[in-house]
Amino acid sequence: MKIWQKNTDVNKGIETFTVGRDRELDMHMAAFDVLGSLAHTEMLESIGLLTADELAQVKQGLKQIYQEIAAGDFIIADEVEDVHSQVEWLLTQRIGEAGKKIHSGRSRNDQVLVDLKLFFRHSIEGMVKNTEHLFDQLIELSETHKNKLMPGYTHLQIAMPSSFGLWFGAYAESLADDMEMMLAAWKICNKNPLGSAAGYGSSFPLNRTMTTELLGFDNLNFNVVYAQMGRGKTERILAQAMSSIAATLAKMAMDVCLFINQNFGFISFPDELTTGSSIMPHKKNPDVFELIRSRCNKIQALPNEIAMMTTNLPSGYHRDLQLLKESLFPAIDSLNECLEMTAFMLENISIKDNILEDKKYSYLFSVEVVNDLALSGVPFREAYKIVGTQIEDGTFAPGATVKHTHEGSIGNLCNPQIGMMMKSIVDQFNFEKVHTAIQQLLA
Amino acid sequence: MKIWQKNTDVNKGIETFTVGRDRELDMHMAAFDVLGSLAHTEMLESIGLLTADELAQVKQGLKQIYQEIAAGDFIIADEVEDVHSQVEWLLTQRIGEAGKKIHSGRSRNDQVLVDLKLFFRHSIEGMVKNTEHLFDQLIELSETHKNKLMPGYTHLQIAMPSSFGLWFGAYAESLADDMEMMLAAWKICNKNPLGSAAGYGSSFPLNRTMTTELLGFDNLNFNVVYAQMGRGKTERILAQAMSSIAATLAKMAMDVCLFINQNFGFISFPDELTTGSSIMPHKKNPDVFELIRSRCNKIQALPNEIAMMTTNLPSGYHRDLQLLKESLFPAIDSLNECLEMTAFMLENISIKDNILEDKKYSYLFSVEVVNDLALSGVPFREAYKIVGTQIEDGTFAPGATVKHTHEGSIGNLCNPQIGMMMKSIVDQFNFEKVHTAIQQLLA
Amino acid sequence: MKIWQKNTDVNKGIETFTVGRDRELDMHMAAFDVLGSLAHTEMLESIGLLTADELAQVKQGLKQIYQEIAAGDFIIADEVEDVHSQVEWLLTQRIGEAGKKIHSGRSRNDQVLVDLKLFFRHSIEGMVKNTEHLFDQLIELSETHKNKLMPGYTHLQIAMPSSFGLWFGAYAESLADDMEMMLAAWKICNKNPLGSAAGYGSSFPLNRTMTTELLGFDNLNFNVVYAQMGRGKTERILAQAMSSIAATLAKMAMDVCLFINQNFGFISFPDELTTGSSIMPHKKNPDVFELIRSRCNKIQALPNEIAMMTTNLPSGYHRDLQLLKESLFPAIDSLNECLEMTAFMLENISIKDNILEDKKYSYLFSVEVVNDLALSGVPFREAYKIVGTQIEDGTFAPGATVKHTHEGSIGNLCNPQIGMMMKSIVDQFNFEKVHTAIQQLLA
Amino acid sequence: MKIWQKNTDVNKGIETFTVGRDRELDMHMAAFDVLGSLAHTEMLESIGLLTADELAQVKQGLKQIYQEIAAGDFIIADEVEDVHSQVEWLLTQRIGEAGKKIHSGRSRNDQVLVDLKLFFRHSIEGMVKNTEHLFDQLIELSETHKNKLMPGYTHLQIAMPSSFGLWFGAYAESLADDMEMMLAAWKICNKNPLGSAAGYGSSFPLNRTMTTELLGFDNLNFNVVYAQMGRGKTERILAQAMSSIAATLAKMAMDVCLFINQNFGFISFPDELTTGSSIMPHKKNPDVFELIRSRCNKIQALPNEIAMMTTNLPSGYHRDLQLLKESLFPAIDSLNECLEMTAFMLENISIKDNILEDKKYSYLFSVEVVNDLALSGVPFREAYKIVGTQIEDGTFAPGATVKHTHEGSIGNLCNPQIGMMMKSIVDQFNFEKVHTAIQQLLA
Repeated sequence: MKIWQKNTDVNKGIETFTVGRDRELDMHMAAFDVLGSLAHTEMLESIGLLTADELAQVKQGLKQIYQEIAAGDFIIADEVEDVHSQVEWLLTQRIGEAGKKIHSGRSRNDQVLVDLKLFFRHSIEGMVKNTEHLFDQLIELSETHKNKLMPGYTHLQIAMPSSFGLWFGAYAESLADDMEMMLAAWKICNKNPLGSAAGYGSSFPLNRTMTTELLGFDNLNFNVVYAQMGRGKTERILAQAMSSIAATLAKMAMDVCLFINQNFGFISFPDELTTGSSIMPHKKNPDVFELIRSRCNKIQALPNEIAMMTTNLPSGYHRDLQLLKESLFPAIDSLNECLEMTAFMLENISIKDNILEDKKYSYLFSVEVVNDLALSGVPFREAYKIVGTQIEDGTFAPGATVKHTHEGSIGNLCNPQIGMMMKSIVDQFNFEKVHTAIQQLLA
Repeated sequence: MKIWQKNTDVNKGIETFTVGRDRELDMHMAAFDVLGSLAHTEMLESIGLLTADELAQVKQGLKQIYQEIAAGDFIIADEVEDVHSQVEWLLTQRIGEAGKKIHSGRSRNDQVLVDLKLFFRHSIEGMVKNTEHLFDQLIELSETHKNKLMPGYTHLQIAMPSSFGLWFGAYAESLADDMEMMLAAWKICNKNPLGSAAGYGSSFPLNRTMTTELLGFDNLNFNVVYAQMGRGKTERILAQAMSSIAATLAKMAMDVCLFINQNFGFISFPDELTTGSSIMPHKKNPDVFELIRSRCNKIQALPNEIAMMTTNLPSGYHRDLQLLKESLFPAIDSLNECLEMTAFMLENISIKDNILEDKKYSYLFSVEVVNDLALSGVPFREAYKIVGTQIEDGTFAPGATVKHTHEGSIGNLCNPQIGMMMKSIVDQFNFEKVHTAIQQLLA
Repeated sequence: MKIWQKNTDVNKGIETFTVGRDRELDMHMAAFDVLGSLAHTEMLESIGLLTADELAQVKQGLKQIYQEIAAGDFIIADEVEDVHSQVEWLLTQRIGEAGKKIHSGRSRNDQVLVDLKLFFRHSIEGMVKNTEHLFDQLIELSETHKNKLMPGYTHLQIAMPSSFGLWFGAYAESLADDMEMMLAAWKICNKNPLGSAAGYGSSFPLNRTMTTELLGFDNLNFNVVYAQMGRGKTERILAQAMSSIAATLAKMAMDVCLFINQNFGFISFPDELTTGSSIMPHKKNPDVFELIRSRCNKIQALPNEIAMMTTNLPSGYHRDLQLLKESLFPAIDSLNECLEMTAFMLENISIKDNILEDKKYSYLFSVEVVNDLALSGVPFREAYKIVGTQIEDGTFAPGATVKHTHEGSIGNLCNPQIGMMMKSIVDQFNFEKVHTAIQQLLA
Repeated sequence: MKIWQKNTDVNKGIETFTVGRDRELDMHMAAFDVLGSLAHTEMLESIGLLTADELAQVKQGLKQIYQEIAAGDFIIADEVEDVHSQVEWLLTQRIGEAGKKIHSGRSRNDQVLVDLKLFFRHSIEGMVKNTEHLFDQLIELSETHKNKLMPGYTHLQIAMPSSFGLWFGAYAESLADDMEMMLAAWKICNKNPLGSAAGYGSSFPLNRTMTTELLGFDNLNFNVVYAQMGRGKTERILAQAMSSIAATLAKMAMDVCLFINQNFGFISFPDELTTGSSIMPHKKNPDVFELIRSRCNKIQALPNEIAMMTTNLPSGYHRDLQLLKESLFPAIDSLNECLEMTAFMLENISIKDNILEDKKYSYLFSVEVVNDLALSGVPFREAYKIVGTQIEDGTFAPGATVKHTHEGSIGNLCNPQIGMMMKSIVDQFNFEKVHTAIQQLLA
């Protein structure tokens, strides 16, 4: 059933093909669709397109639907095309004529745009919270294991002394930088497209500043043609921000798979968190990290997929854009699961003691010796040659202690500074402002 | 010639293969390599690894090289491996022993990292300036042509009235949002990796906070393992920011190619800015915009290329990362040329008058009529059906005037607000702080 | 429940995360898993690992399961990990001890490899059939509309006369070339990995040549390490072949969206095959083609996604590979639907008559006039200048007839030759050989 | 200078932007442009557009230019736009009026199309030869090292016994499958687009079958609209075929980097083929393989780049397509270098003896023991549990010999069969037919 249906029936096969997975995916947007309608109708009343009475009915009806959604009691009926139609239909069933007026001054285009922006804001908040949680855990692990040395590799060759303090802390700091990208995505999401109608505005005297405030947006997508252009662009940018977190998790997962390998053997996990093999009874496979790696690499491919689906489309809405939900929505869930699962696994990690006592790691200390010579006055390039010759002669005798003291080194991890960096970025999201606006809208 | 060469000669074919295009690409980093060395040596003196006298010699030598680079008098000799070696070799030739000490406490890994960050900061500033210039021009064109109406399309179907005021303004606002991504890239670039050495820090008592200030960085990449992880990640994030601008330009170019097509015929350019055909004498081909579109789509594919080249590499430096210069550096030049060329072309654009007088555009006004009915009290969904029936019956009589007044609509473009949005983002880059630091370093 | 489970229970959350959508996706492979087991056990009996009696029981049991799958009466129980375990468990329930022996001499790795190969063979056959059907229709439309002229564009500028005969025929020939890629994918799929066990072979004296023949494969993946490498590689190559068809369909969809646009207006579809707008009652939106374009562009991004998920993984199985099912299986369905939907829509296409009578197309004939001059003896470059000058002077008088006679031109479409090209490629798949083998296996 | 230039000068900056790197890249096509013209003019004479006398002059002039190209004595002058103009200009300078007639009946569009096809055919032959060379070497190494055992990994966990015979052979067989993709690309390339003119054919009575035979093509791109569609599509498909070889090389390079790592330590290369570190004198870095991996991953991203640059372009030529040369031509050189460099490095590989004597590899043999139990009559699933329990109890006593005998296993590598598979694919290219045609054309 289409609310706006004309006489001619659209062919059934066509409808199945065009509706696709919309009903399922639109469920993610149901609550946000109601919020958008609450703001829109409050504004409509302010410009005389709804009476105060009608508005009161509409608000009560919408809030009831919101509660049903929250309670899991909302479905999009098979004969209804999408979430917007379902909400409007329910409302009209319940309150009558006033329900038919809520679509005045908007199009499905700006309705879905605002729903998506609200949903993405909500999703970003969830991803930021999960990232913060993992960040905190990594900082804690870094502190706990700061004295556990490990070999550091360059070119995958044994290179210099490193530590688990450095290793955990590095991924924490990586997540902090990833939050800069997410903040950019947030800022781009957090602008109001409502009122752009089909992408060319409306002859109604809409008050877009009012809906902007009601929905807690930071600003408007002013230009209505640009507001419509935000479809596809917002998705791509959010996917890019997600890909940054994903790249961090995938790299860490690759490290874990290497370090749990028996040739490295630096770390282990309890048996119940690894999986066995149907044919090799001794295996402790790191399936969880392999799947995190794979899922995160898939997320890394997502911005490209979105770009491929949207590039070279002229301005103005195209139905192509509808399919982006299918690409992006499950990726948000997947990234959250990867963040949670990484945190869960790391709670249970064990680090081997005294890794560097194995004699194959003795060359790790060659640079220390070069530096000692340099500190004693030998020019660096000559010290380097002396130690190089000792190694080739087999006369090299390494030291065994590591005394790195500068900022960010083994002996001075600067985790508090990294923590402050994270906090200062997260504070800029100002989720509280959004919460307050939404609470008032629902009050 | 390798400064750090051991006795065994590396096979010649190997050297050609491994050096690749480094000499050519490293020229982009030459000036920044000198700046990095100026900051590094000033710090080395502060911790007693250079005498005041040695520092004075080194600074004078480095500044001379900087001037030679600025004057175009610097080359990387064929027998020298890279820019770092060339600078160090030149310096040692000129000032002797002191030149050999400047590499103390760093590795080529953090040296190239800091060179790249300084080069990227410089490149970002250039791209931001070019974007601002195009933005200003688009806003101006939007104001100039604000009364020129055009059809707005959805699904590439004639939909509703639009205007060239909206069209130009939309791309301006798009560039403003693109600057949010570039700002995120800037913040991630603008942190100091120097002192991370080969990715595991140094046993020298380096003062990384000091080099951070000297080079005008906002902060450190604290954790040294993370500092090294920034290689590849910084490139990918910068490419993502660039891809956002590129997507905006490519979409505009697609619109231009469509609007210059004779079936649309909305715009034109002077003959000397279009190209002809070898076989069709009447053609005025929009080659410039086709090439902008193509170059920008190539840039849109760049983040994916970088991700493909870096994904699943464990932590620590790998030679793979060296090749990213080949992908990214030419893309920066290309994007700048696209920004400049778009601006140049738009200076010369002509807009056709009275486009909407063609009768095929009369249905554009159907929504206006629906809205008029709604404003007169007919419920929206019923007004919609009435007009739909009129159109099917052939009895529809459109209005001809457009009276859109809300924020961001044809009659109220909000260009000043969009301009303020742009300004508030650009201000956050604070390029001035960087300029001041660099001037002091060279003073 | 895991058939191969050891004592320690794998954490429940871990299991949910690792199993993912396997149960749902494995249903695609159920029938093929049974076929693989039929061949494997017949071979096991031949080398003495099953008695003739046991084999008889196993075959009967497996055939029963096969019929249940065909009838839709098969499910993977919630507590069962995957399709392989479900089949084996069912069998063991029904026939007892003999069921436990069917896994001898293989691992889940080669079991899933052979299941995938059989499923891909089946899927390729389906896609080839759908492609052939669309091809036939395009050739027929090309013949039907061979006299309907249309403008041909270069640079999206009106260029030279074309025809709907050419336009439909071009996409037919494109599909023929796409089949070359699909044939390459088929050849790579159609080799037997069974017997490679976990990727390193087996100490059992397996007869892999025998299972190759039983399953109708053309050849073996000989080297067992390479057989395992086929996981991920086969998927990527199949996705590349699919992307070629997708690129053809997406381009055609773009043309359709342009030609149905009112500024072009070359084609139309019945109302019931287009969709309307919630706010613009006159619209006939080509949603189906927009969705075909979008789905096909998503498929074009798929090979890259698979490459991103598999690149830089060392040789040997990794759990990462499991997720490729989630990417590839739905894409196969989607491509088939796009092929079917394109064919369905084209059955209903209407082509406008006398398009070229519009005077804006008169310059189309300029090249004809240049060529006429050239044929009369004027050097081509001079003829070109003469006509160019006439056009600039406004004195150009076009001809109106098109007399192209060479191979592949408006007057000589060569559709029979294109049909033969298609047939000669499709014949090489030799699906019949596969059908025969499978029928014998089930006999 | 443009041969087809009209009066109005195209703006200089525009010309620089639009010409781009064409002159440099077109040099790759120079010889093929002459071949195309030789075939085209021979055909023009046969249909009366050139006299026998003119043809004789043209042929002599073109052959002279061909020899100059072969001798390295050909340049594209700065003031000349592209290779086609340069050849035509040179010819006209030397033989006068007849030179001006060679462009009759074609456009630059089909001229560049045929040049590209001829260049790609040549390039494919080169890549196939290099692949065959590496293949032969891998097979030889597989035979040489067939008795050297190594651990086989799954999930990067020590799993089962493998061998260097298997490892080298696996990559050989991978290259054989890659040749199937290259063969598909060859078949798609090896069709004649000449005569399609600007993509809509010609009013001249061209004999396209004749040029097809003269140039040694297997068939025509019949439909002229499709012939033009081949631009971009051919490049994408060739890039996909290349990406398959690249994926094989990249995976092998990843293995090498892992196996040369000191924790694995399976293989080594002479010092002169590895590179050192500026700060760690003991390093033997596998830079060559890291760069092969990185270059090959870049090539893996290439098909996506081409798709991004061409998707959603309607049918008909667009200038966008010109930029594909910049993406594809250097990738061909890069892949050839990677193939050559891999072969060169492997000539110098050393394999460690007795790797499996290290006790950490003893569990490798667990499956052998399970299988022995199974062969003695214990059902497989029970044998599995018995050995699993022994391993958990610490009572597992491995065997030490590997007796794998089936096709493709350690003891039966089937390298001759793999060699035959390779040969049967390579034979289908039938390069000889092409050589013969070109020799006759130049005779």
